[in-house]
Amino acid sequence: MIVVMKSHCTEADTQAVVDQITRLGLQAHVSKGVERTIIGVIGDERLIRKEQLGLLPHVEDVFPILKPYKLASREFKQENTVVEVTGVRIGGGELVVIAGPCSAETEEQVLQTAVAVTQAGTRLLRGGAYKPRTSPYAFQGLGEDGLRILAKVREKTGLGIVTEVMESSEVEIVAEYADMLQVGARNMHNTKLLRSLARIRKPILLKRNFSATLNELLMSAEYILSGGNQQVVLCERGIRTFVEYTRNTLDLNVVPAVHLLSHLPIVVDPSHGTGRHDLILPMSLAAVAAGADGLMIEVHPDPARALSDGEQSLTPDGFRDLMRRVQELARVLRP
Amino acid sequence: MIVVMKSHCTEADTQAVVDQITRLGLQAHVSKGVERTIIGVIGDERLIRKEQLGLLPHVEDVFPILKPYKLASREFKQENTVVEVTGVRIGGGELVVIAGPCSAETEEQVLQTAVAVTQAGTRLLRGGAYKPRTSPYAFQGLGEDGLRILAKVREKTGLGIVTEVMESSEVEIVAEYADMLQVGARNMHNTKLLRSLARIRKPILLKRNFSATLNELLMSAEYILSGGNQQVVLCERGIRTFVEYTRNTLDLNVVPAVHLLSHLPIVVDPSHGTGRHDLILPMSLAAVAAGADGLMIEVHPDPARALSDGEQSLTPDGFRDLMRRVQELARVLRP
Amino acid sequence: MIVVMKSHCTEADTQAVVDQITRLGLQAHVSKGVERTIIGVIGDERLIRKEQLGLLPHVEDVFPILKPYKLASREFKQENTVVEVTGVRIGGGELVVIAGPCSAETEEQVLQTAVAVTQAGTRLLRGGAYKPRTSPYAFQGLGEDGLRILAKVREKTGLGIVTEVMESSEVEIVAEYADMLQVGARNMHNTKLLRSLARIRKPILLKRNFSATLNELLMSAEYILSGGNQQVVLCERGIRTFVEYTRNTLDLNVVPAVHLLSHLPIVVDPSHGTGRHDLILPMSLAAVAAGADGLMIEVHPDPARALSDGEQSLTPDGFRDLMRRVQELARVLRP
Amino acid sequence: MIVVMKSHCTEADTQAVVDQITRLGLQAHVSKGVERTIIGVIGDERLIRKEQLGLLPHVEDVFPILKPYKLASREFKQENTVVEVTGVRIGGGELVVIAGPCSAETEEQVLQTAVAVTQAGTRLLRGGAYKPRTSPYAFQGLGEDGLRILAKVREKTGLGIVTEVMESSEVEIVAEYADMLQVGARNMHNTKLLRSLARIRKPILLKRNFSATLNELLMSAEYILSGGNQQVVLCERGIRTFVEYTRNTLDLNVVPAVHLLSHLPIVVDPSHGTGRHDLILPMSLAAVAAGADGLMIEVHPDPARALSDGEQSLTPDGFRDLMRRVQELARVLRP
Repeated sequence: MIVVMKSHCTEADTQAVVDQITRLGLQAHVSKGVERTIIGVIGDERLIRKEQLGLLPHVEDVFPILKPYKLASREFKQENTVVEVTGVRIGGGELVVIAGPCSAETEEQVLQTAVAVTQAGTRLLRGGAYKPRTSPYAFQGLGEDGLRILAKVREKTGLGIVTEVMESSEVEIVAEYADMLQVGARNMHNTKLLRSLARIRKPILLKRNFSATLNELLMSAEYILSGGNQQVVLCERGIRTFVEYTRNTLDLNVVPAVHLLSHLPIVVDPSHGTGRHDLILPMSLAAVAAGADGLMIEVHPDPARALSDGEQSLTPDGFRDLMRRVQELARVLRP
Repeated sequence: MIVVMKSHCTEADTQAVVDQITRLGLQAHVSKGVERTIIGVIGDERLIRKEQLGLLPHVEDVFPILKPYKLASREFKQENTVVEVTGVRIGGGELVVIAGPCSAETEEQVLQTAVAVTQAGTRLLRGGAYKPRTSPYAFQGLGEDGLRILAKVREKTGLGIVTEVMESSEVEIVAEYADMLQVGARNMHNTKLLRSLARIRKPILLKRNFSATLNELLMSAEYILSGGNQQVVLCERGIRTFVEYTRNTLDLNVVPAVHLLSHLPIVVDPSHGTGRHDLILPMSLAAVAAGADGLMIEVHPDPARALSDGEQSLTPDGFRDLMRRVQELARVLRP
Repeated sequence: MIVVMKSHCTEADTQAVVDQITRLGLQAHVSKGVERTIIGVIGDERLIRKEQLGLLPHVEDVFPILKPYKLASREFKQENTVVEVTGVRIGGGELVVIAGPCSAETEEQVLQTAVAVTQAGTRLLRGGAYKPRTSPYAFQGLGEDGLRILAKVREKTGLGIVTEVMESSEVEIVAEYADMLQVGARNMHNTKLLRSLARIRKPILLKRNFSATLNELLMSAEYILSGGNQQVVLCERGIRTFVEYTRNTLDLNVVPAVHLLSHLPIVVDPSHGTGRHDLILPMSLAAVAAGADGLMIEVHPDPARALSDGEQSLTPDGFRDLMRRVQELARVLRP
Repeated sequence: MIVVMKSHCTEADTQAVVDQITRLGLQAHVSKGVERTIIGVIGDERLIRKEQLGLLPHVEDVFPILKPYKLASREFKQENTVVEVTGVRIGGGELVVIAGPCSAETEEQVLQTAVAVTQAGTRLLRGGAYKPRTSPYAFQGLGEDGLRILAKVREKTGLGIVTEVMESSEVEIVAEYADMLQVGARNMHNTKLLRSLARIRKPILLKRNFSATLNELLMSAEYILSGGNQQVVLCERGIRTFVEYTRNTLDLNVVPAVHLLSHLPIVVDPSHGTGRHDLILPMSLAAVAAGADGLMIEVHPDPARALSDGEQSLTPDGFRDLMRRVQELARVLRP
């Protein structure tokens, strides 16, 4: 942590900061410049709070030197983390595609989709049983009935199940049915949920909130890692900007940035990320080229009749085409 | 809802949209322009989903005509809603100030703050027992112990208690202690929590998520209203933008906009909204001038030692000065 | 400037940074922490570029300590700058209102507006002769004819004229007619224009670009100040965010922030800032309460027929009401 | 254009809107719904202004049906536009890479870079002579001397020259030296410059402003197209968002969106788009996969000594590697 003093501060002001640093159990290192005096804090700055120094008299600014996350950082762990979901390895070099309907609506709809995505080469099925919706008048998901449908379809197809959990009190029931538990974008900051997920032995898919910085995403991962669960996969699904032609702005820059800063795998969801079915294919190709470890794609047998997110779903035909294209690309990029 | 057809669509394409509208139980009204054919949907458009029409062949765009919320709209209820919290009326014309520490840390700290804000003229105390924090290593609140401290301080001072609830499973316990339950910005989209709050008989303070549009804020209110609880107060606490000199961008434009579109009261939180103690006073004055029904201010006896949010807290002295200034202003604006 | 080394850097890496700093004519101050070595740069960091250090091997981060602007800072000049426009003092404590039509359309329209705003108590008239429009098919302003209309109206009413200049090659002609030259939001980064304005002896109204940070706004002011013209008034007119119910998000937080960081006056334009005539009054009151030195308001005798920006213009009646309200407020706040 | 009336409007209110539409030379089509009456405008809505209808009594909302641009739309011109720069065809299916230093600093530096990028397979050289800089104290470019250096290097290497023009008064001189004129992001809204460029016979590279919507980008292109110059190439170079780990947020979604809506080619600049040399390669691959017609890359023989933008420049070696990778990718995607 670096403390910058105001230009007209006195020796006594500087000394007061040094004293406070010492009192907090750390060491201070004063450096007098021409226009500013700065004080370096030596020791683990994560143990103190910025304002313990920032609110002292004549302090102009305080800035941290260390990243706020530790376990999620590549500095802490150099080699890539590989997360295994029913035998499928995410982060191990192979491109993994998770596909399925936004919501589980009926057994028939889920099964039909599952068969189609299996034929196209997918081994993980997504499908929502609990749905967070903007409108109280919209379809809110089938709840536990939805989970049972997903489990039946797993039995018939062998696909691994990825599904969202929305509250800590539901972690147990969802974990009973799911092979991977998804934290939705709206819940990325739900610390109680994150702490519950840290205590289970299942892999977690952690979606970036649509206004989360990269630091915040990694801090949410840190909640899960520091609680004891190392099986975390990050997911970029679009951020909120001023742009109006896509529902969200899919931020692919985060993909190589995550690979630089963290050892965790990252997948990309171009369905939510763009909100437009006609942009899913090009943005999937772009995500793979940017280095994504996987994709998450909404597929529905009849998008116009989907109870949610039809506008951003592919048909089974469209999905087959996408699989062919992204696999071809992956082969070239990672021979 | 208005359906805009692509420029080269055929009669058959248009007819297909008309047929679909009729099938959904609504009426269609076709209007052929020079460059575009548009089709109006007559009936309650909230009953259908955009994509049921938008994904038909040669449809260019579909846009809704009606606001997505109903009960929260001024069209539905013309007169202002007044929400009463232990005798304090929010939305009734008088400026209401809710003040207190970010977190309840010790009984002494809360009591000391409570006495100070009472003397300054405040009748509602804020204080967090459950704290959503970005870092797993930061103080997470005292939990139920914090609630007990707040209740004791209420007994001693007569102040009404406003405190945050973070999960539906905790609504019952928090409602036992609190006079008003706060939904934090990170939970504005937590639909399960909103539905639980709809079923209790206590007033709710609903904070705007830092990336929520006005429509989304009112839709979250709609969850509570449509579930049976009419006592909802909105709260603006800053949005996330590219701006870097404030932690958030306090968006005062939302205050008069809420008054135009909704009957619900709105208060403003300049502490979180700016993240800087030196901007709290001017932005409080601005909020009152913009028409806010109240303010929410963080006060701490010793901000540099606060376990959270010290940088955006006023000292008791600073708060007394603020109270004097905003009350003087309120008297001039609403004589 | 502070250089943070990566955790696994060697002595030689650190020495290489120290050598480079010395070579650049500055001094280095090394401080070894537990997790990181940091190197302070002693001397005027504005003389070197971040990447001269940041691209050396094993440098993790470089951050500047000094603000990038100097002449615009309150550190450089403690007392407020007062800018005089035809006898009207902006920044001297009195609230100044600049009003008039978006575009000068006809002499009659400008005169009619000018008479109305004069009667309401305004002494400065705004009006555009050169208009930057998003569409090539929209009205682009009358050009020099517009300037002549403004000059005639000044003769008849005694109002000072504030009008936009869009290119360095037009500074001379606009300066002939105008009492204050406005840099529009789209031109805030037009460095050639800024340099031309630095060489004239007329006051400048510098509007914040809709995606400019506060640092960038003050750096644009610095271009004018460092070129020799000290008469600069800043103007907040809304930033671009994800918010959709206002055309822009009027950012009042910048008003007290400018007063903390700079000696330059700042006025607020709620017409452009919100894009909605029904929000102009409340946001004008809020701006004054936040400490704005003035307001800039669009007024048109018949907004529905305005050739530009009718939606965000007040009628003369609406403007009279606004003047009464803001002056009343200003008297209370600055007795 | 669609006019939506407020819920409690009378017949007379509706009639007033119909009369106004007729008066403006267009036709009205009234459609009464259950909750709202809407009025369709038949005829070329680009001839009227929204507020001519929006400010009439009891009008709730007005929304346009047609895109504001015409000549830039794919509806107007179905086949892709191919822009030729000294024999290099942009938009014709082949991936085009424009490379070179941010600023022309010395003849040696430009020549050295030019030789390196030529060897790597590039045929177009970028290099700035006029530089828009945030700080008045930073290097502002060599001006005409820079142009002369670029011209000399063209003579020696045969590379086509792409360079920025910052003001309409400089179009003539820059056009004398350059093969393609670049409009920088800060000038995308400079309508006078756009109109000047419409009158020359050279291809234009139009960069998206960092807060421009897609509509606004295409409207700037429309200025050039409607003035008579059809040789326009768009360029995405990052938008401004809340994200902090990249200088800008490179928005690749715009690439396939442009291809859907317009016939103009689009290239991507990952150097400015990310501001980080270590993200240029992955984001270049992603841009190509998203369908970009070309790339624009900053290359400098010694980035740490570059007078501008060193942090986002590749070395000649890094660039050679990038060329090999993107060309390999392009071959797979567009066989």
